[in-house]
Amino acid sequence: MTDRPTQQGRKYDLDRTTAFSDGVFAIAITLLVLNVEIGTDEPDLGEALGDLIPQIFSYAISFAVIGRYWVLHHRLFGDLSYVDGPLTSMNLVYLAFVGFLPFPTEVLGEYGDEPHAVALYAANTAIVAVLGVVMRVYSIHHGLWAGGEDEREHRREVALAYLAIPAVFLLSIPIAFLIAPWAGQLFWVTLLFVGPALNHFSHTDDG
Amino acid sequence: MTDRPTQQGRKYDLDRTTAFSDGVFAIAITLLVLNVEIGTDEPDLGEALGDLIPQIFSYAISFAVIGRYWVLHHRLFGDLSYVDGPLTSMNLVYLAFVGFLPFPTEVLGEYGDEPHAVALYAANTAIVAVLGVVMRVYSIHHGLWAGGEDEREHRREVALAYLAIPAVFLLSIPIAFLIAPWAGQLFWVTLLFVGPALNHFSHTDDG
Amino acid sequence: MTDRPTQQGRKYDLDRTTAFSDGVFAIAITLLVLNVEIGTDEPDLGEALGDLIPQIFSYAISFAVIGRYWVLHHRLFGDLSYVDGPLTSMNLVYLAFVGFLPFPTEVLGEYGDEPHAVALYAANTAIVAVLGVVMRVYSIHHGLWAGGEDEREHRREVALAYLAIPAVFLLSIPIAFLIAPWAGQLFWVTLLFVGPALNHFSHTDDG
Amino acid sequence: MTDRPTQQGRKYDLDRTTAFSDGVFAIAITLLVLNVEIGTDEPDLGEALGDLIPQIFSYAISFAVIGRYWVLHHRLFGDLSYVDGPLTSMNLVYLAFVGFLPFPTEVLGEYGDEPHAVALYAANTAIVAVLGVVMRVYSIHHGLWAGGEDEREHRREVALAYLAIPAVFLLSIPIAFLIAPWAGQLFWVTLLFVGPALNHFSHTDDG
Repeated sequence: MTDRPTQQGRKYDLDRTTAFSDGVFAIAITLLVLNVEIGTDEPDLGEALGDLIPQIFSYAISFAVIGRYWVLHHRLFGDLSYVDGPLTSMNLVYLAFVGFLPFPTEVLGEYGDEPHAVALYAANTAIVAVLGVVMRVYSIHHGLWAGGEDEREHRREVALAYLAIPAVFLLSIPIAFLIAPWAGQLFWVTLLFVGPALNHFSHTDDG
Repeated sequence: MTDRPTQQGRKYDLDRTTAFSDGVFAIAITLLVLNVEIGTDEPDLGEALGDLIPQIFSYAISFAVIGRYWVLHHRLFGDLSYVDGPLTSMNLVYLAFVGFLPFPTEVLGEYGDEPHAVALYAANTAIVAVLGVVMRVYSIHHGLWAGGEDEREHRREVALAYLAIPAVFLLSIPIAFLIAPWAGQLFWVTLLFVGPALNHFSHTDDG
Repeated sequence: MTDRPTQQGRKYDLDRTTAFSDGVFAIAITLLVLNVEIGTDEPDLGEALGDLIPQIFSYAISFAVIGRYWVLHHRLFGDLSYVDGPLTSMNLVYLAFVGFLPFPTEVLGEYGDEPHAVALYAANTAIVAVLGVVMRVYSIHHGLWAGGEDEREHRREVALAYLAIPAVFLLSIPIAFLIAPWAGQLFWVTLLFVGPALNHFSHTDDG
Repeated sequence: MTDRPTQQGRKYDLDRTTAFSDGVFAIAITLLVLNVEIGTDEPDLGEALGDLIPQIFSYAISFAVIGRYWVLHHRLFGDLSYVDGPLTSMNLVYLAFVGFLPFPTEVLGEYGDEPHAVALYAANTAIVAVLGVVMRVYSIHHGLWAGGEDEREHRREVALAYLAIPAVFLLSIPIAFLIAPWAGQLFWVTLLFVGPALNHFSHTDDG
């Protein structure tokens, strides 16, 4: 009931919290396939499969997004020495938005040509990314991080640099409304360059 | 077949029981999103998404409830040194009611303005909370608890104090029928104050 | 690629096999709730919930059955020192029948008054139980069991005694066809006495 | 954030990556049962269950396929000493195709007499198998493999021999189109002989 900060008690917390989080990630990512469904009004199977291309596309995007967020979550929690109460609560809110992602994915697969669908998807993924940054900064500031104090300032900078991810998603919302929904989605491709840049930045001082 | 009380055998039990329980919690919490579905009869996507607010609201409530119960379950099992047969059975009954929660959540999202929906939801969550208290008291009385004997009486009091949670849910049922369904749901907000009070109470002697 | 019988390699097998099996059990048991659905043709929510009693009943039966099988599986694998190739294959076939159980559960909830529904359910659960006995006997005969040789014969007898479980399920099939579907389901109650008897028998020599 | 190659950090990676992968495998394999559904237009339950034979057949095939891929994945990761960034990405792509398998399974159960259904299923399973070989070869070439250098060349040959599995699946596609869909599915039976042959080959040098 108490979670006193003994070495063993804290370790237990961390293990079971990551196991629970892994479960939510794994289930959310595997539920995505339920959104891919053959329309019953198409008599020809070959054409019906062709009609599914937008849904398969949104499956691929969301698998990549959730998979990437899992990697980031995994790195964050791999650096912690234990989990405290507030981080447990933040993690639950974070997981609530991860677990919600199959819904915007379904909407994107069915209504990908409407700006509302792009906005819903971008908003949800941006919130997850912002909450990830909040958890990183919190854990650095509250002594949950397992590393030495000398790297602390650099860590904080790296954590804030990750705000580039939600920035891309949020910027895609006005693009979807003002230019076109496909332009908003195309803008997400920027993330393929943001990721490696962040990785490079976060490793410069570690060598 | 025997689960003889060797140190190793009992530890194995505890690990696999918590892993199985974590699985049920993680799946139940992630299945909640399947209840959020766009009505096919609404031509405008923006309005269709607006119509989903009650379902998103019930998603948020249930994610918070299941997430909180997971934290409590996690604390309970984190304090045990092993699991015995009766506790395994109690835990299965407990998980049956946790795994059932997506159904009342769906009903609440679709029929939130009817008292039966509020009552079903409140009854299910109250039963989970009562079973949680039963498991706490059982594990204290049957030597499953890893801590010292001197804290035993205090632990028992803390466990019983958690009956405040089902009390709030059960009280919301007559409120939903006699006043209004939304008043019953509003009453659940009381839990935001009950939780911290319980945490404070349970830690007073530990310092 | 080889799974050579080093101590460490085999231990890894056992852990990951139990984790995978736990996952299938936890998911199958949590998917059961998807079978409980409100009919859209019933205007009154109170009555619609009343109509769900057979579905809630089949949810409860299947949660108890899968939960009990999980306990038995957990005991079986808890006694092993490692897992070999044939047992891995048997376990996959076993899990295929465990993972199938949500379907007969759905049929039982919707067509519980037809003998075919009772027969399908009883056949599926009986096959799971028989495969569990096969895995027990195999692991005793092929040196996978972690215990001493002196208890081997007793273990084999205990394993065979578990055939009482599928016997009850198989006997319920002719009862459902010749007498009545509800009589077949009522016969399952016998298992509440078979379980404790088996537990008592399996522990007599261990004291 | 860094995943520096300390012994402990890398070990953590491997454990959580296998746990996440096991989760995706376990969920995908258990979601298969959702494809087995009774048609509502068939009044007689006995006949309705008879109509389900193709769906039960595709359930059995996919359970065997996913289960077998899990065993291969399990062997691959059991031989690694740690996981690096590229392998994590490859594993996510691999899991995306594993998690997609319930969809081709559903199509095969409903349209098993059309060559497109056989082709979709064969293509998906072949891609998973090819990605498995790619991950094996990558991990051998990049020092992720825990074993000695002297077996390296033999390992590489064994890994490439596993291309026999996607070869069978890919060959079944022209058979399904040119001869008949059932002939394509029948050709998959070849895998029952390929598996043991691969096992024999991979063990010859291990003594």
